[in-house]
Amino acid sequence: MKVGIAGLGVVGAGVVRLLDEHADVLAARIGRPVKVVAVSARDKRKKRDMPKGGWRWYAKAEELAADPEVEVVVELIGGADGTARNLVEAALKAGKGVVTANKAMLAMHGAKLAALAEKNNAPLAFEAAVAGGIPIVKALREGLIGNRIDSITGILNGTCNYILTEMRTTGRDFGEVLAEAQALGYAEADPSFDVDGIDAAHKLAVLTSLAFNTAVDFRAVHVEGIRHVSALDISFAREFGYRIKLLAIARRTAKGIEQRVHPCMVPADTPIAHVDGVFNAVAAAGDYVGPVLFEGRGAGSNPTASAVVADLADLAAGRHAPAFGVPAVKLHPLKAAAMADHVGRFYIRLIVRDQPGVLADVSAVLRDHKISIESLVQRGRAEGDKQPVAVVLISHEAREADMARALKRIAMLRSVLQPPALIRIEQL
Amino acid sequence: MKVGIAGLGVVGAGVVRLLDEHADVLAARIGRPVKVVAVSARDKRKKRDMPKGGWRWYAKAEELAADPEVEVVVELIGGADGTARNLVEAALKAGKGVVTANKAMLAMHGAKLAALAEKNNAPLAFEAAVAGGIPIVKALREGLIGNRIDSITGILNGTCNYILTEMRTTGRDFGEVLAEAQALGYAEADPSFDVDGIDAAHKLAVLTSLAFNTAVDFRAVHVEGIRHVSALDISFAREFGYRIKLLAIARRTAKGIEQRVHPCMVPADTPIAHVDGVFNAVAAAGDYVGPVLFEGRGAGSNPTASAVVADLADLAAGRHAPAFGVPAVKLHPLKAAAMADHVGRFYIRLIVRDQPGVLADVSAVLRDHKISIESLVQRGRAEGDKQPVAVVLISHEAREADMARALKRIAMLRSVLQPPALIRIEQL
Repeated sequence: MKVGIAGLGVVGAGVVRLLDEHADVLAARIGRPVKVVAVSARDKRKKRDMPKGGWRWYAKAEELAADPEVEVVVELIGGADGTARNLVEAALKAGKGVVTANKAMLAMHGAKLAALAEKNNAPLAFEAAVAGGIPIVKALREGLIGNRIDSITGILNGTCNYILTEMRTTGRDFGEVLAEAQALGYAEADPSFDVDGIDAAHKLAVLTSLAFNTAVDFRAVHVEGIRHVSALDISFAREFGYRIKLLAIARRTAKGIEQRVHPCMVPADTPIAHVDGVFNAVAAAGDYVGPVLFEGRGAGSNPTASAVVADLADLAAGRHAPAFGVPAVKLHPLKAAAMADHVGRFYIRLIVRDQPGVLADVSAVLRDHKISIESLVQRGRAEGDKQPVAVVLISHEAREADMARALKRIAMLRSVLQPPALIRIEQL
Repeated sequence: MKVGIAGLGVVGAGVVRLLDEHADVLAARIGRPVKVVAVSARDKRKKRDMPKGGWRWYAKAEELAADPEVEVVVELIGGADGTARNLVEAALKAGKGVVTANKAMLAMHGAKLAALAEKNNAPLAFEAAVAGGIPIVKALREGLIGNRIDSITGILNGTCNYILTEMRTTGRDFGEVLAEAQALGYAEADPSFDVDGIDAAHKLAVLTSLAFNTAVDFRAVHVEGIRHVSALDISFAREFGYRIKLLAIARRTAKGIEQRVHPCMVPADTPIAHVDGVFNAVAAAGDYVGPVLFEGRGAGSNPTASAVVADLADLAAGRHAPAFGVPAVKLHPLKAAAMADHVGRFYIRLIVRDQPGVLADVSAVLRDHKISIESLVQRGRAEGDKQPVAVVLISHEAREADMARALKRIAMLRSVLQPPALIRIEQL
């Protein structure tokens, strides 16, 4: 099978390296060789960690789609629109298979691209778009095909998981750990895409479509990042037997499908609480299989190359499945459950002036919003009155909208000195 | 696609139930309906937890292979030989696809059956044979196809994992917990197959073939069960920061491929140490993907049905892969590393008479066999001399053969009151 690769960054170079290093065993496993015949990258002279090949170079990625020898295009450019999308659409229209790692594009245009692929009888594969080397796309689409999936819970962004793990193990604050992660190359110079939860939300939107056979709907994802997670909250989490993780959750509820990305407290003894550092994990619950968990490296040159090559092998061996589990025409629009209707338990941390009546005021607001308290802890009481102290409340199950309204009222109390911190508790 | 099912125990009934309950969504996902048209089971009148169908009944399972309407035979009878093997061979010879959950048969005749399948251009699939609902066969064969796999480490027997978990959490001894597991239906009346490690070894032999593209070689598996694991050793494990798990390990070494099933001490902070109760898990290390871990229910009607139906879906959708990752003629014979050459760390627990000179004698034997001690702990010293006390030694890396010879000598020392207990330490 003859392949054209667009984008020769660390992932593209990894794919070239893998196909070269394992050429013989891959040919034996697949039944025929997979060979790169053309590439496109901005800088032809740049030094890359990969073997040299006799491939054709194209300055414009879109030209790969027109190369008559190229049977499959690997798109590793990135970005929801622009060159990446133009290339993918051109390749599909030419009846060529497409393998992509582009979660932003899939999150924005996934259903349309799947329809275009089917119309042209061209496969569209994207194992590398979610959770790096973990073969979660194949697992959901084929391995768990017999199940009605009821929920997906993932740690889908290695940068956030690394930062939260470092904060927990060193006690340092977000800003300090982020700066270190940037110096180490674990976080981008502009970290917003990762730490504000957008990257995880793109991946969640793709997983949701696969799991529930709904059209990808990125705009329905509720997204919060980890910037507001403080060392203080991490230390309280430990005290209460929790760990803080940025989770991406999709769940079937009576009101529709919830899709949300936000920091969560998870019980310290659940498997997902132990997924640390740059690792990713996806837990799924199926009606027949029960709970399953997949864990591995979520990014990096080699793990992502492993996923790209798995897709290439499927295409070369003629193993096809609809991109999102069912043919595009059968993807039903996602009926989104409103975040305001979400019901769950909450961790609320306040900084209050230590004086009589504060807890009575806070409790009254919560009562007025029908929120009942499971436990309440006050910490940091110093000698002398009226010092700032931390108060932590753990709620019983409450509606998101009620909690939001209550917190707005609480923030306005004169004795409450900082905006309240809220972290949702997931029992899993 | 028209299916015949042989064996209507809990798994067979689960498959019938799943295909019925999810008929519509499966047809959408696969592209065509999957329908049971014939079954075979010993007792036609037995009450089963499944819907009734208009299928043909066969008293003899082998007759399913001759039913002209049956395109795929699902073999859920079990046993390495006899009816199960006869049926599978007859079906393959008739060019029909076979889906089986029969690990004993695959462990004994896997390579031959794969060759027979290819000769007759009939697919052979067995996702349900290993680790229940976890799609590990597909993950190794397709999802990680780009990797050279260097090791596989699995918790592959739910009965043993349940017993060891109960022993750890309750402090009770093996016999007591086994009796309870039998009462609860988690262990068979004759538990040998599970607790002596044979079932896990069957599954490991299959995974080894998939991971290393070698012919299945069950006889090369070193097998020990969990009968000799004592509450005392579990309590020492905790003290040293370990948990005891029955692991199934296949590993590429300089001397060949190791395959071994035995109780292991694993560091309490590794993910596999937290796989508890009836859950299974498989960790794999690939040269590109790095470490990956898959966890889920390893047995039971519904999870196993989920795996059987995944295979049926692949067959119905025309997704084929060689049974063990490469065509049968390319499976090379497994070059087995001798267990005597295994190198690792060891936990040794002795019961000795508490008198001067005992530790000197033990240490001298170990020194004579070139085994060096990382730590040594004596516990249980009571008032008065010559009482039995427990002594625990943790060794540095040592050769299995040296350790076996040393333990034989130590067992003969007059002050050593019981046969020494040995548990291998796996760092993972």
